[in-house]
Amino acid sequence: MTRPPLKVILAAQAASARLADRDTPFIFNEWYVAAFAHEVGDRLLARTLLGQQVVLFRTSAQEVVALEDRCPHRSMPLSAGTLDQDSVVCAYHGMRINAQGDCIEVPSQANCPHNMGIRAYRTLERGPVVWIWMGDPQLADAAQLPDQDWLSSPGWETSQGHLHLKASYVRLHENLLDLTHLSFLHAKSFGTPDYAKAAFQSEMGEGRFALLRSVVPTTLPPVWAQPTGLTGKDQAARIVHSAFRSVGMHEVSVTFYDCHLPEAGRPTFRIRTAHMPTPETATTTHYFIVHGRDFALNQPATTQFMHDQLFVAFNEDVVGLALQEQALAATPADALYEFSVAADAPAVAMRRFLLTRQQQEVAG
Amino acid sequence: MTRPPLKVILAAQAASARLADRDTPFIFNEWYVAAFAHEVGDRLLARTLLGQQVVLFRTSAQEVVALEDRCPHRSMPLSAGTLDQDSVVCAYHGMRINAQGDCIEVPSQANCPHNMGIRAYRTLERGPVVWIWMGDPQLADAAQLPDQDWLSSPGWETSQGHLHLKASYVRLHENLLDLTHLSFLHAKSFGTPDYAKAAFQSEMGEGRFALLRSVVPTTLPPVWAQPTGLTGKDQAARIVHSAFRSVGMHEVSVTFYDCHLPEAGRPTFRIRTAHMPTPETATTTHYFIVHGRDFALNQPATTQFMHDQLFVAFNEDVVGLALQEQALAATPADALYEFSVAADAPAVAMRRFLLTRQQQEVAG
Amino acid sequence: MTRPPLKVILAAQAASARLADRDTPFIFNEWYVAAFAHEVGDRLLARTLLGQQVVLFRTSAQEVVALEDRCPHRSMPLSAGTLDQDSVVCAYHGMRINAQGDCIEVPSQANCPHNMGIRAYRTLERGPVVWIWMGDPQLADAAQLPDQDWLSSPGWETSQGHLHLKASYVRLHENLLDLTHLSFLHAKSFGTPDYAKAAFQSEMGEGRFALLRSVVPTTLPPVWAQPTGLTGKDQAARIVHSAFRSVGMHEVSVTFYDCHLPEAGRPTFRIRTAHMPTPETATTTHYFIVHGRDFALNQPATTQFMHDQLFVAFNEDVVGLALQEQALAATPADALYEFSVAADAPAVAMRRFLLTRQQQEVAG
Repeated sequence: MTRPPLKVILAAQAASARLADRDTPFIFNEWYVAAFAHEVGDRLLARTLLGQQVVLFRTSAQEVVALEDRCPHRSMPLSAGTLDQDSVVCAYHGMRINAQGDCIEVPSQANCPHNMGIRAYRTLERGPVVWIWMGDPQLADAAQLPDQDWLSSPGWETSQGHLHLKASYVRLHENLLDLTHLSFLHAKSFGTPDYAKAAFQSEMGEGRFALLRSVVPTTLPPVWAQPTGLTGKDQAARIVHSAFRSVGMHEVSVTFYDCHLPEAGRPTFRIRTAHMPTPETATTTHYFIVHGRDFALNQPATTQFMHDQLFVAFNEDVVGLALQEQALAATPADALYEFSVAADAPAVAMRRFLLTRQQQEVAG
Repeated sequence: MTRPPLKVILAAQAASARLADRDTPFIFNEWYVAAFAHEVGDRLLARTLLGQQVVLFRTSAQEVVALEDRCPHRSMPLSAGTLDQDSVVCAYHGMRINAQGDCIEVPSQANCPHNMGIRAYRTLERGPVVWIWMGDPQLADAAQLPDQDWLSSPGWETSQGHLHLKASYVRLHENLLDLTHLSFLHAKSFGTPDYAKAAFQSEMGEGRFALLRSVVPTTLPPVWAQPTGLTGKDQAARIVHSAFRSVGMHEVSVTFYDCHLPEAGRPTFRIRTAHMPTPETATTTHYFIVHGRDFALNQPATTQFMHDQLFVAFNEDVVGLALQEQALAATPADALYEFSVAADAPAVAMRRFLLTRQQQEVAG
Repeated sequence: MTRPPLKVILAAQAASARLADRDTPFIFNEWYVAAFAHEVGDRLLARTLLGQQVVLFRTSAQEVVALEDRCPHRSMPLSAGTLDQDSVVCAYHGMRINAQGDCIEVPSQANCPHNMGIRAYRTLERGPVVWIWMGDPQLADAAQLPDQDWLSSPGWETSQGHLHLKASYVRLHENLLDLTHLSFLHAKSFGTPDYAKAAFQSEMGEGRFALLRSVVPTTLPPVWAQPTGLTGKDQAARIVHSAFRSVGMHEVSVTFYDCHLPEAGRPTFRIRTAHMPTPETATTTHYFIVHGRDFALNQPATTQFMHDQLFVAFNEDVVGLALQEQALAATPADALYEFSVAADAPAVAMRRFLLTRQQQEVAG
């Protein structure tokens, strides 16, 4: 063992203390994905979001409703009840709660204490996803949603999936901001050995963090080689932009082309992945994913092929981050330290931003 | 969201603070059901009662013995040992413990430290159940057992069962004192829609809490309609008395009759259910049940039919109360509040009584 | 109940407070078995030892390496990586860690922070076992290993096994130092009724604790009767020496002979068992066992027969100690007390020694 000097470890710990991690309280004043749109319908959907119990459903007018999932009469989850005429009838004593969270009927008596304090959360449905605002309702502003036109644009062919991550959402954002790991964690799926060593540029600004990586020339893995036809050895360019878009969304944009063709007129192929992590608890995360491409449209077999291959890779992140979370949980606070390298710069800045956001929110 | 003013929530929290709940320590100076009589025999039965480990068995004279389930030599559960000549031989080093909890043999030496402090609890066997007193033995008084003659009377046909409840016993008593929930939680078993809206009267006195509900006319569910023959629509009266009898027992008594017949001479049918909750831990409960009827005696098929139907319903309570417990556990203390309605009056008074009992017991 | 006076219980609790138990922190400056030698090879073996995550492997020169199982870059367990040319390549971002715990490659950049503080633990391979020193490396001294020549001597035929114990290693040492329990816990395996009542002598010195038990005459259980031929009733002498050899090793040595033959010239049969407990967590233990005999050499069928019978017995300890641990966990600290008897003297002294060792280690 060649242990670094204590002061080096203490410095690393001091640096980590300025970064968000599994112990950082949630940021509430933010839009998060609550569910895929198709998950919300005329059945009561219970989901834990930011540590809160929430019940989701649609009214007969197709409005998405999100209520605090506890009847304030005797603490039964509303999600155990029944949906009847746009209101929830509690499973226990039949209190009827409308879409605004107001009590409108108490079966055992004539009068009704309307104002029982069941919180109704603001929601926004945008293409395939339903966003929710769990913080101060006065601050909910649809304009703060990251741009996401391609998610419902006819020029993009998309597919989607939902993974359950046993790790903090912070570590998922970190994972996405440095794709060095493609050569290792995804060595058997969509990573290639040259990926980790490829040149990269960091982009960091107020709330904007990204890493641009150009892997040229490279050999594409089957998930991209097959649908683009760029199947040759060292035939392709793979230009990857990983961008933290908001606390609830990270977008990876990739451009592929044949690097042996002249720039003018060569076809380009673009794919995008919206990675949308929503904290469930401090160390578990709902991981919503929408993947899209701007080529080979209307080819269901290609969509299925790419979806299957991609979710093998995304699941490798889920497995790896759970192992990381276990190691973090098993390490006493005073023995824990982490060292960063150059490629971590955007992720470190992003984690510092998240901690600052959380601290500012609490400070009010 | 129309959140009630903060002062309203604070008032609700202040009111709840005077009621027993999952956080209230156990009341020890009380009779609780330890087991059904048939469960206790010549095999060692380990059971956690009021958070204590207890081992139960019968002597050759058929006396029920209840001992602290830990050998004070090296902490082996006595229940892992063997019963031999009315004493327990410890599974580890063979210490022999008699029915009074005294050590009477140490195999590795001639002398024996008789007084090792294994507690022997006072028990009372009454008909189908064995009661135990876990508190101050000086205060154990058989006269404090609630009247329960019908449990072993030849005029009553009974059946019994044991459910494991993942909730506080306090919430089971609360459940039983307001049967409004029959129309909702038991909508598919023995509840009917008119139940929740039926007139009720509260009965409250020192340690006596009850709710009387008259559902007239009503249509009986199959569990009662079939054995009474009152199968017509709106043919029956259903007069229900739910009474908290002691910390360890709640009794529901119901009278049925044909409400279209003149009072004089019309047959009445009575059923009773003894609900006997014994805390296992703060949030789990042994739920002992004896059900009886004073009609259709000596008809095993009727007994079986009613038993099966009833336990479907009682299991609905077990499922519902576990959901309630989960919601209580998931809600931070400062975010938790509950509002009561008129039908909750006896249950609220009962929970206030339980808290006072517990506080007085600790004060001594 | 005849409860002992409070002062007697308080005295028992005071005595226990001077003994090591499940709450005592680990002793780090000591050799413990990390693994059987055959378990460590060219695959990464993750194991929790003394609450620390450790990864074990062999270099191409067959040296055993034990590293702290966490990459200090982003906390991925090294054991999730791959072994390549005597170094570990981290599964996440490909940091390459050599057998000394130094980082020798960071794929995403040219320079490399060699000194990242991954601890490499000192190990010693001795016959069938690999020992590890988790404490101050300056104090690691191979001379402190207990003598264990027989483990790899051609004069001894051995077999080995590994059990997982859900109890503190302290209680396993205690178990081994008083074999009174053979008559009870092992009544159906290798114990006999006369064992508990046989004469015994305690041996106690600085860090040496043993109990010598002579069971003469006795009837041997099949595990010993069959391979020695001493199958007659009350034919055999069974002389048992249970010795605490170190914090990481207890040795049981037994001599058998025909007690009806004259001492001169009668054959003796010796068996030994090395019981090597390594704490995993405060209340779980890796239980490594090597058993040997100095007779019936080169008889694989006899080895298999004895091994199978012995591990039935050792598993009875595992079951019993887990029950003891459950009872200890279920008993509040202020209600817990234990009384000792004469046969406990060596174990009590050993537990006092362990606590003193731990306290001295912390004091430095």
